[in-house]
Amino acid sequence: MIIAMKSGATADDIQGVMDRIEQSGMRPLNLPGGDRTVIGVASSIPPDLREPLTELMLSLPGVDHVTQVSRAFKLTSREFHAADSIVTVKGIPIGGKEVIVMAGPCAIESSEQLMDAAKAVKSAGARILRGGAYKPRSSPYAFQGLGLDGLKLLRDIGGEMGLATVTEVMDQHDVESVMEHADILQIGARNMQNFPLLVAVGKTNHPIVLKRGPAATIDDWLLSAEYILNGGNPNVILCERGVHPLDRTYTRNTLDLSAVPVVKEISHLPVIVDPSHATGHAKYVAPMAKAAVAAGADGLLIEVHPEPKEALCDGPQSMRPEQFTELMESIRSIARAVGRT
Amino acid sequence: MIIAMKSGATADDIQGVMDRIEQSGMRPLNLPGGDRTVIGVASSIPPDLREPLTELMLSLPGVDHVTQVSRAFKLTSREFHAADSIVTVKGIPIGGKEVIVMAGPCAIESSEQLMDAAKAVKSAGARILRGGAYKPRSSPYAFQGLGLDGLKLLRDIGGEMGLATVTEVMDQHDVESVMEHADILQIGARNMQNFPLLVAVGKTNHPIVLKRGPAATIDDWLLSAEYILNGGNPNVILCERGVHPLDRTYTRNTLDLSAVPVVKEISHLPVIVDPSHATGHAKYVAPMAKAAVAAGADGLLIEVHPEPKEALCDGPQSMRPEQFTELMESIRSIARAVGRT
Amino acid sequence: MIIAMKSGATADDIQGVMDRIEQSGMRPLNLPGGDRTVIGVASSIPPDLREPLTELMLSLPGVDHVTQVSRAFKLTSREFHAADSIVTVKGIPIGGKEVIVMAGPCAIESSEQLMDAAKAVKSAGARILRGGAYKPRSSPYAFQGLGLDGLKLLRDIGGEMGLATVTEVMDQHDVESVMEHADILQIGARNMQNFPLLVAVGKTNHPIVLKRGPAATIDDWLLSAEYILNGGNPNVILCERGVHPLDRTYTRNTLDLSAVPVVKEISHLPVIVDPSHATGHAKYVAPMAKAAVAAGADGLLIEVHPEPKEALCDGPQSMRPEQFTELMESIRSIARAVGRT
Amino acid sequence: MIIAMKSGATADDIQGVMDRIEQSGMRPLNLPGGDRTVIGVASSIPPDLREPLTELMLSLPGVDHVTQVSRAFKLTSREFHAADSIVTVKGIPIGGKEVIVMAGPCAIESSEQLMDAAKAVKSAGARILRGGAYKPRSSPYAFQGLGLDGLKLLRDIGGEMGLATVTEVMDQHDVESVMEHADILQIGARNMQNFPLLVAVGKTNHPIVLKRGPAATIDDWLLSAEYILNGGNPNVILCERGVHPLDRTYTRNTLDLSAVPVVKEISHLPVIVDPSHATGHAKYVAPMAKAAVAAGADGLLIEVHPEPKEALCDGPQSMRPEQFTELMESIRSIARAVGRT
Repeated sequence: MIIAMKSGATADDIQGVMDRIEQSGMRPLNLPGGDRTVIGVASSIPPDLREPLTELMLSLPGVDHVTQVSRAFKLTSREFHAADSIVTVKGIPIGGKEVIVMAGPCAIESSEQLMDAAKAVKSAGARILRGGAYKPRSSPYAFQGLGLDGLKLLRDIGGEMGLATVTEVMDQHDVESVMEHADILQIGARNMQNFPLLVAVGKTNHPIVLKRGPAATIDDWLLSAEYILNGGNPNVILCERGVHPLDRTYTRNTLDLSAVPVVKEISHLPVIVDPSHATGHAKYVAPMAKAAVAAGADGLLIEVHPEPKEALCDGPQSMRPEQFTELMESIRSIARAVGRT
Repeated sequence: MIIAMKSGATADDIQGVMDRIEQSGMRPLNLPGGDRTVIGVASSIPPDLREPLTELMLSLPGVDHVTQVSRAFKLTSREFHAADSIVTVKGIPIGGKEVIVMAGPCAIESSEQLMDAAKAVKSAGARILRGGAYKPRSSPYAFQGLGLDGLKLLRDIGGEMGLATVTEVMDQHDVESVMEHADILQIGARNMQNFPLLVAVGKTNHPIVLKRGPAATIDDWLLSAEYILNGGNPNVILCERGVHPLDRTYTRNTLDLSAVPVVKEISHLPVIVDPSHATGHAKYVAPMAKAAVAAGADGLLIEVHPEPKEALCDGPQSMRPEQFTELMESIRSIARAVGRT
Repeated sequence: MIIAMKSGATADDIQGVMDRIEQSGMRPLNLPGGDRTVIGVASSIPPDLREPLTELMLSLPGVDHVTQVSRAFKLTSREFHAADSIVTVKGIPIGGKEVIVMAGPCAIESSEQLMDAAKAVKSAGARILRGGAYKPRSSPYAFQGLGLDGLKLLRDIGGEMGLATVTEVMDQHDVESVMEHADILQIGARNMQNFPLLVAVGKTNHPIVLKRGPAATIDDWLLSAEYILNGGNPNVILCERGVHPLDRTYTRNTLDLSAVPVVKEISHLPVIVDPSHATGHAKYVAPMAKAAVAAGADGLLIEVHPEPKEALCDGPQSMRPEQFTELMESIRSIARAVGRT
Repeated sequence: MIIAMKSGATADDIQGVMDRIEQSGMRPLNLPGGDRTVIGVASSIPPDLREPLTELMLSLPGVDHVTQVSRAFKLTSREFHAADSIVTVKGIPIGGKEVIVMAGPCAIESSEQLMDAAKAVKSAGARILRGGAYKPRSSPYAFQGLGLDGLKLLRDIGGEMGLATVTEVMDQHDVESVMEHADILQIGARNMQNFPLLVAVGKTNHPIVLKRGPAATIDDWLLSAEYILNGGNPNVILCERGVHPLDRTYTRNTLDLSAVPVVKEISHLPVIVDPSHATGHAKYVAPMAKAAVAAGADGLLIEVHPEPKEALCDGPQSMRPEQFTELMESIRSIARAVGRT
């Protein structure tokens, strides 16, 4: 931690800052500079002291601003875990050499619809079936999902088809029941900072897909992952799904693909990309899915619906089975071109 | 709803759209235009059909884009409720002529701290005491609040001092217990789209402060309020607290004060402003609080701590009691200048 | 300047950074820390070395990131010029105790229109007449202004009515001719980083209104002012006019009023606010103008048109004369409430 | 154009709107709806009437909002020019099957430096040499480029090496001189709405690379291209280079790759991508360059410097020659995987 004093700070102000750092059990270092004095904390700061100490410093007279030199997250950081983490789901390794595709409908609507989708995604080569039973919707008047009945369909059809499954959990008190029905739990973008939910899934050992919130910085996102790892669950898969866009004339969000190489550098966790929610239009899903693989993503999460026109949710961004099959072909070529499979 | 066809749409495409509108029980109107044909829906669209119909239209061949002419929210809209709503808390009317100030510490830390804060805000003229017992924190290593013990302190000290109280609820399963201890429930910015929580508070009749999320458009925010009103609870107070900023060099967020006159125009709900979280620095709270009142806010939510340097949470943005007293003086002058009290 | 090394940086990496700092004629200080080593530059860095040195450091092996502790701007900074700067235009002091209002039409359309506007703004109490002769328009098909004929009307009518005048200059080669016709030159938001234009107005001694660009951070904005001051012209008036909004459903931009107290703290230059372009709708101009004065703005720039329905430019955001007169009344009350006149 | 009336609009308000549309020579159509009346303009609106008519409508009583159904740009739109435009520079087709790479240093520093860069990019397979002679810099204290001397070096070394050349022009009065020295003129992101400059290059027939501004919507960007096409110059190459980011901790900007398929759909102009400015760090350039090609970009603009540590400008984002050579290999594989060369 570096404390930059105001250029007009007095000797007393400077001493006050140094005293407080010592009182907190750390060693201050005075770095006389050009325009202003800078004080460094020459000790490792325990994670639980980082924020209070920062706030304390900002409250002292003569302090201009405080800069962190260490990262706020530890367990998710590559600095403390150099090797790539691989999250394994029913024998499928996520974060390794193979690019893993999760696909299926936005919402589970019926046994038929889900079975048709499952057949389509399996035959195209996807290994994990997605499908929502609890749907977070901006409007209270929109379809909210089939709930437990949807979960049962997912479990049965996933089992029948030999596909692993992923579905969203919105309420910390549903975690157990969702775990019983699905292989991976998804935390949606709007719940990325729903801390009771993060704490709840952190107590399990289930794989978690953690979507990035639309206004979340990368540090915010990794701190949310840190909640889960800190609870004891190391099986976190990060999912970039677009940030708030400049305008919504053409896409729902702006897919921030540079987050993929950034996160791969600073964290050991696997990162997948959801081009369906990012763009909001089926016609843009294929180019962005290919771009994601080229940028180094470990996997994709894609909406596929047997009949998008009839979908109860997100029809415009759902691919038709034949579009998806074609995309899977291209993805295989791109994966090879970047040394993946 | 207006469906704009592509300029190359065929007669069949156009007929296809018109047929689908009729099949949905509504009346289509063909509006031949300059570059492209436009099709209007000349009927009131039931709220639960709005989204599926939009998505259906977007899935049809030849459709370029769809524009809504009616708003997605109904119960929160001034179009269906012309008069200002006033939410009354222990006899205090929020949304009327008087500007109401809620103040107190970010987090409740101890009986002494809360009592000192309560005395300070009361003597300065605030009528509602704020204090957090459950704290949403970006980092798992930060202080998470005193929980139930904090709620009890809030109830006891609020009662003793004759102040109404407001505190945040983060978990839908805590709603009842928080209601027993506080007069107003706050939904935090990061929970603005925590739909199970919105549904839960919608089933009560308790006043709710609903903060705007950092990337939430005004329509998103009013749709979240719609969840609560649609559940049967009309007592919603909207709270602007800043949106994601261009950069964080000087402020934590960008206070979007134009949201105040916009929301006052399109909705009947009261709107208050939180300049503490918006700016993140005590020195900027006073100018932005004054600006909020000048812009027409119905109230303010301000962090005051008897000893900001010792605060366990948000010290740098907390005002000292004497700063707050001075601010309350200015606010009274501004309120008078804009015809409020 | 603080250089944070990677946690895995070697002793050689650290020595390499220290050597390079010394070779640049500055003194390095090694600050051994917790997770990583930090190296400080314990000398004042000349402004022209700041950027190359930063980039050099970022290019060296083992460097994680570089943080500036001094500000990039000098001449605009309050650290080197403690007293408020007052820019005087025809005896009117901008940046002093009085809140100065500049008002008039977006574009000068005719002698009659400008005269009607001038009479209206003068009788309401404004002291400076605005009017555009060269108009920057997003679309090549929109009205581009009357050019030199407009300038002449502005000079003649301003002179006749005893009002100082302000108008935009878009081309560095028009600077002289615009200076001959107007008392203040305006640099528009889209030209905030048109460096040849900044250099050109920096060579004059004319007062300059420098608008903030829609994606400009405060540091970017002050660096653009620095171009003008560095050229020898100290007469810069900063103008906040809104930043890129979350969405454009209700306002054209998001007025960032917290920029007013921030800039008043870190810079000595006067700051005014343009609520017309910020909101884009006449109905929101009055509340935001009042809020700007309450937040501490030194002045306002407001669009007033004798007949907004007939305006060739920005009609929807132009106030009618009677609305403007009413606003000026309110502004006087607010100004008094915050100790201004 | 669709005019949505307020739900409380009177019959007189509605008639007023219809009358004004007729007075403007167009045909109004009344579309009685659910919550509100909607009025359509059933005629093609001439481009120069579009904006004044919109503003007129917004100024009329009873009008809630106005929606455009046709696009503001014409000449750049694929609706009026179905085939892909190919811009040919010295026999090199940009916008065809081949992915074209432009590479070289941020700034031209010396004959040696440029020659080394030219050799490196040529041997790696790039066909166009970039190099800046006039540099737009946020700070007045940063290196501003060699000017005319730089242009001469670019012309000479480009000629010697058989590479086409691209360089930025910042001042409309330099257009001719820059044209004499370089094969392609670049308009930088900060000048995207420098309209005098757009008008000046529109009068030439030289190929223009038009960068997207950091807060520019896609419509804003295409309207800037429209200025050039409307001036008579069809040779516009669009360049996505990142939009303002959520935060700058890890990248300078957020590369908006979905802009590539969006622009390819709505416009016939070629689109290239600049991953160097978008990310700001050499280590992220390769993944984003590959992603750009996978997303369908027609070309790349990449900074390569023989010795990034010594660069006077943008060193940290410049690739070393051997990194660039390796990237070119990968790009060839990706291009083949998406059916390009």
